[in-house]
Amino acid sequence: MQQTAILLLHCPDKLGIITEITKFITDNNGNIVYLDQYVDKIDGRFFMRVEWELEKFAIPAEKLSEYIETLYGQRYNMQFQIYFNYEKPRMALFVSKMSHCLYDLLARYKAGELDVEIPCIVSNHEDLRYVAEQFDIPYYVWSIKKDWSNKQEVEREEMELMREKGITFIVLARYMQIISEEMIQQYPNRIINIHHSFLPAFVGAKPYHQAYQRGVKIIGATSHYVTSELDAGPIIEQDVVRITHKDTPETLVLKGKDLEKIVLSRAVKKHIERKILTCHNKTIIFS
Amino acid sequence: MQQTAILLLHCPDKLGIITEITKFITDNNGNIVYLDQYVDKIDGRFFMRVEWELEKFAIPAEKLSEYIETLYGQRYNMQFQIYFNYEKPRMALFVSKMSHCLYDLLARYKAGELDVEIPCIVSNHEDLRYVAEQFDIPYYVWSIKKDWSNKQEVEREEMELMREKGITFIVLARYMQIISEEMIQQYPNRIINIHHSFLPAFVGAKPYHQAYQRGVKIIGATSHYVTSELDAGPIIEQDVVRITHKDTPETLVLKGKDLEKIVLSRAVKKHIERKILTCHNKTIIFS
Amino acid sequence: MQQTAILLLHCPDKLGIITEITKFITDNNGNIVYLDQYVDKIDGRFFMRVEWELEKFAIPAEKLSEYIETLYGQRYNMQFQIYFNYEKPRMALFVSKMSHCLYDLLARYKAGELDVEIPCIVSNHEDLRYVAEQFDIPYYVWSIKKDWSNKQEVEREEMELMREKGITFIVLARYMQIISEEMIQQYPNRIINIHHSFLPAFVGAKPYHQAYQRGVKIIGATSHYVTSELDAGPIIEQDVVRITHKDTPETLVLKGKDLEKIVLSRAVKKHIERKILTCHNKTIIFS
Amino acid sequence: MQQTAILLLHCPDKLGIITEITKFITDNNGNIVYLDQYVDKIDGRFFMRVEWELEKFAIPAEKLSEYIETLYGQRYNMQFQIYFNYEKPRMALFVSKMSHCLYDLLARYKAGELDVEIPCIVSNHEDLRYVAEQFDIPYYVWSIKKDWSNKQEVEREEMELMREKGITFIVLARYMQIISEEMIQQYPNRIINIHHSFLPAFVGAKPYHQAYQRGVKIIGATSHYVTSELDAGPIIEQDVVRITHKDTPETLVLKGKDLEKIVLSRAVKKHIERKILTCHNKTIIFS
Repeated sequence: MQQTAILLLHCPDKLGIITEITKFITDNNGNIVYLDQYVDKIDGRFFMRVEWELEKFAIPAEKLSEYIETLYGQRYNMQFQIYFNYEKPRMALFVSKMSHCLYDLLARYKAGELDVEIPCIVSNHEDLRYVAEQFDIPYYVWSIKKDWSNKQEVEREEMELMREKGITFIVLARYMQIISEEMIQQYPNRIINIHHSFLPAFVGAKPYHQAYQRGVKIIGATSHYVTSELDAGPIIEQDVVRITHKDTPETLVLKGKDLEKIVLSRAVKKHIERKILTCHNKTIIFS
Repeated sequence: MQQTAILLLHCPDKLGIITEITKFITDNNGNIVYLDQYVDKIDGRFFMRVEWELEKFAIPAEKLSEYIETLYGQRYNMQFQIYFNYEKPRMALFVSKMSHCLYDLLARYKAGELDVEIPCIVSNHEDLRYVAEQFDIPYYVWSIKKDWSNKQEVEREEMELMREKGITFIVLARYMQIISEEMIQQYPNRIINIHHSFLPAFVGAKPYHQAYQRGVKIIGATSHYVTSELDAGPIIEQDVVRITHKDTPETLVLKGKDLEKIVLSRAVKKHIERKILTCHNKTIIFS
Repeated sequence: MQQTAILLLHCPDKLGIITEITKFITDNNGNIVYLDQYVDKIDGRFFMRVEWELEKFAIPAEKLSEYIETLYGQRYNMQFQIYFNYEKPRMALFVSKMSHCLYDLLARYKAGELDVEIPCIVSNHEDLRYVAEQFDIPYYVWSIKKDWSNKQEVEREEMELMREKGITFIVLARYMQIISEEMIQQYPNRIINIHHSFLPAFVGAKPYHQAYQRGVKIIGATSHYVTSELDAGPIIEQDVVRITHKDTPETLVLKGKDLEKIVLSRAVKKHIERKILTCHNKTIIFS
Repeated sequence: MQQTAILLLHCPDKLGIITEITKFITDNNGNIVYLDQYVDKIDGRFFMRVEWELEKFAIPAEKLSEYIETLYGQRYNMQFQIYFNYEKPRMALFVSKMSHCLYDLLARYKAGELDVEIPCIVSNHEDLRYVAEQFDIPYYVWSIKKDWSNKQEVEREEMELMREKGITFIVLARYMQIISEEMIQQYPNRIINIHHSFLPAFVGAKPYHQAYQRGVKIIGATSHYVTSELDAGPIIEQDVVRITHKDTPETLVLKGKDLEKIVLSRAVKKHIERKILTCHNKTIIFS
């Protein structure tokens, strides 16, 4: 596999940015293997993902960020991130009692579908330790008291573990705890949640029961980045399935589980591939 | 075409109802051509639609309701409706300025897909008169003042027209006016609306703009019976379409229009076929 | 959980069958908990699934088949099957090298979603032994030579294993071998396959490459019972996903894997619930 | 509305093409309002659609093609087309007896959704003349004899009409006649058909009956450019809808009609927007 650099950027739209960036890469002997851009006409904002081979590229990888900042950062008022395909993202999985999302992610990981490291699984329950053991991944449990009296302390220890393990992003694979503001700020747009409804319908607890009560004919699942407002972060992926009056809350849960795992896995894959940009509480998803 | 009777009923679930009803029909020489039933285990409620040929049926059509009431009504605490396939529903279409739902329904009507009469089209604007004229259907306009000062009077005249024309149900084909409580009570579960969102997400005005703001990845449309609570009546049909970050409010409107007309037409067709039962603000839709 | 009997039947349509069968059950103190029927007007054929509690039922379970045959079998020229919910189906999984369908079924099994026994996993390769071991299920490997010189012998041994283990149905979870006529006849409508295309498009080998070549905009997966004609058995379930010109055979394989596992699992679940009837190479799927 | 030029091109992939083309446009004071490109890695082929405002553009519109050919055509072995947004495509509609696709296209046209001229509707039957009259569009009928003895002559007259009316593309809106090789060659990738199946399943006549016979659980519709091989041209758009064992050929036809009109209209819209490139019997659809 060729080593590549990935540049994700956005800035106010201006004539010629794409020309400049691609020229910069090709002039320095970078072979572009991926290029996609998008202009938000309403906000007047330019978004771009470009990936190129480093083999003959004139600028050393460790200097790249500095060059981009110097050459284009201020001039275009540009926000950008640089990744290298040989630096794998390191994902922590947070779970509670339901195994379907966890199994789905681990089965993909094991089959080589996700180019990621999984240094640990964290839970507030012992229930899924056996899954972690099946896949030989360390499993950490911190019980959270019903009155949340130890929540702050637990999160501090979890964050300590995240640091130790060099975690770059967190996936809440049906983790039934609210994440505190402090933790979110340490992983901005780097905590992915799966909510078991078609957001913004049925925010909060027991969305399948809400859907049953309302008598909808379609249910959904939504994967989004976690922000301080509950279930209101930037949406990465959604999908739905048709239901009928014959469905009960129990069959909705079963049908929903299939949605949840597929939707979460798609979102995680896009994140790992560094194909998501976030702006104004929305995502731009490159294909 | 054979003349048939259609019996739609629901009642508390009890052993043997289906046996009794089918026996009643067959014992009286009715040839059952459609039978579907559903038991809501959670509410303990039984729902049924049965249709049979009247040719050799022993009980005269005009006595049927009386017989059902006497034999089963009180005994099973049963709510029921009887229809005859030779009595076509009479549909009034209410429209404002957008033509897509109107055209879709009229094109189906003209092609013989909808077994219905359309005695009139009602609007608060002149805009779509040309469509009504294309299809030779009387078009009535009552302007509603911005301060709603004449709304009550307009509705009274509209209701008068409904009576004159023998209207059995009303379809709001993107009619951008709120229907008053009085009008709803005259047509309970007989006013069908199309809302341009995947309810209960984005209730109220400008749902596509709301969807754009929220950054959802899927938009929908919902057809429901109108009740006194805005956009909260029993849902008949929903459908969705996938969108991306590239969509603007304008392209959402265009994509949504395709959903709206298909979803509304499906709901209208089910209503015309007398395949919808309503209970506890939900619909049972027979196939 | 209440013990129940499940009766699946079909026969030429005739007035009063449903009345007779439900009367038979209720007269003998069976409490009906599920009833669904369907009349194929074109073929003039009646299909029914009825399930009732055995607690106070007057006829002993082991005599039930005899009674149905005597009372209705010949009279209605009826084909029927009887199951009891306390007799779990016993499923053998056949796999080759791809793990996604296997993991998906085992994760559901482990989570209690599938009311089934899984006495063994059979393969023509060693590759997935680790998955079987993760879930503590015996894994049997018979290599099949490229010239098929040992295929007959292998199948004989596999059938021997099926008998020993009391297998009631077989699931080909991406098992890349053709099943012989002999084996199919021992498990008629009891071998479930997943084909990685939207049948009847792209029968045979490498359907994703065929789809890529043809430039379709949607790909699918199909679960069906295996018959002697390749990929032509009764279809149980299908689903599709939208693709674009940007997809390569490799991304089609990835997207398809998600379809395959969901479609296969849905089909397996319906089979386990005894909700499938087969007639004229088509399935009736009760809801 | 600003006047714009649209350049659609494809050529063997080579470093720097996108830079050159965008530089060419911006250097000549063209303001790029749309840019999308795609690299087919398997075929090593580059595809691009770029649109820019002509207001201050240095090169006169009528010289543009010459410049592109001279500067890039041979050098990159490039195939390209140039369009101007102020030159509306001129569409001829060919129909037979079914009105749903025709109504759908005309209703969109009337609502201003399609930026196109419709100078004529052509048919082999009188049946839909009333629709053409509703929309005040000239309707031409040429009956084709069952033995096709006058087919060549009819097509010659139709082509004569196409020339007179300056038709740029033809839409077969459920036109139930095979188009001859001669006619296809005069409109290469400019005749759009709607086939009422999910191609390549159920090529040819009566696809809904074929689908019914096969017992599929999903049906589809496919819009494609017409080539000399029946139902085998480049696919533009497809969509599907779920069906059940309860569907008959008649209900499949009804459900299919909704698919057909939506799928055809989406394809027509993409064509009108000049967002389709065709290569190796496949389409690249820009978003």
